[in-house]
Amino acid sequence: MNSSNYPSRLLESAVKEFTRLPGIGKKTALRLVLYLLKQDKEVAFRFTDTIRLMREEIMYCQSCYNISDSSTCNICADTRRDKQLICVVESIRDVMAIESTQQYQGIYHVLGGVISPMDGIGPDDLTIVPLEEKLKDGLVTEVIFALSTTMEGDTTNFFLYKRFTKYNVPMTTIARGISIGDELEYTDEVTLGRSLINRLPFENTL
Amino acid sequence: MNSSNYPSRLLESAVKEFTRLPGIGKKTALRLVLYLLKQDKEVAFRFTDTIRLMREEIMYCQSCYNISDSSTCNICADTRRDKQLICVVESIRDVMAIESTQQYQGIYHVLGGVISPMDGIGPDDLTIVPLEEKLKDGLVTEVIFALSTTMEGDTTNFFLYKRFTKYNVPMTTIARGISIGDELEYTDEVTLGRSLINRLPFENTL
Repeated sequence: MNSSNYPSRLLESAVKEFTRLPGIGKKTALRLVLYLLKQDKEVAFRFTDTIRLMREEIMYCQSCYNISDSSTCNICADTRRDKQLICVVESIRDVMAIESTQQYQGIYHVLGGVISPMDGIGPDDLTIVPLEEKLKDGLVTEVIFALSTTMEGDTTNFFLYKRFTKYNVPMTTIARGISIGDELEYTDEVTLGRSLINRLPFENTL
Repeated sequence: MNSSNYPSRLLESAVKEFTRLPGIGKKTALRLVLYLLKQDKEVAFRFTDTIRLMREEIMYCQSCYNISDSSTCNICADTRRDKQLICVVESIRDVMAIESTQQYQGIYHVLGGVISPMDGIGPDDLTIVPLEEKLKDGLVTEVIFALSTTMEGDTTNFFLYKRFTKYNVPMTTIARGISIGDELEYTDEVTLGRSLINRLPFENTL
């Protein structure tokens, strides 16, 4: 579709802005813009104003770097949470995923990514220093690494493990194995191999 | 994903606004919002402000109801266009599709939809009266219907045909047939049947 086909520059700019978002192509962008045009002005303005306000006012928890409406997030502010148990995750989406399991009662530390030289992300771009600070007083009972099982995730895991060894804090990673519901024959060898090595006493799985 | 899992109300409202758009689910909405959060404020604000401005200032051509930056669209304002040849389409997207073929030199009339009792859209919700006005002076040489080949499109087509017969203007519809590149054996019977009935002298297709 030639850009000169847009009947309006305002329309064209709006479509262009939508195509900057990940996974939104030209056709989808046009559909979204035409949808917003069909709505009452108030509806369209509520859309833009809500997003603007969010970007303007959202904060990050000063302790765990989770997204928050205040300087301390709900999880860190929750007195029932175990503050000596820290789960290290890549992003706020991982916090939401773990929270939805309702299996975890500790707090989090959001790294803000993983070390990835290809994308120009080094240790200094992540919240590693404040994480290290939390380990120095010796009160933390366990650090759980819950990073992606990608090369970058594993590298970051290993980097943090080496760096924090001197603090003598127990460090664990979440279990990797066959997903529940998966069939053995369709599982890749690496996962299958790992799940054999890390086999558990049967009683533990009951 | 439980809504209580959102670490921030601002985030939750922004996600909710994105999910109102067609084809955007909760997971996609969250990905888009987190993307906008990662961008500089200026980038996020340019997104919201461009869309707000578009919704605020966009106009519709007073003659053909196409989207426009002024009260007369570029096509209607173009002196090289044949103003006596009117192509009736459902939406501005169809105008863009036909324009991109570069085969049409007349003007358009955007109906704003098709008659669809199921969706509560009757003739009065469309721009039928102003279209009729254009036919009254007897200057229009041809009206081309380019509506969808759906039941609603065909109904609308027939409705307009009956209503405009008295003006004695030639009315045509765009050809329906086998898409170029399609194989006969995979074409549905209705299309194949129609394309047989509406066969053309071979010379016309050269």
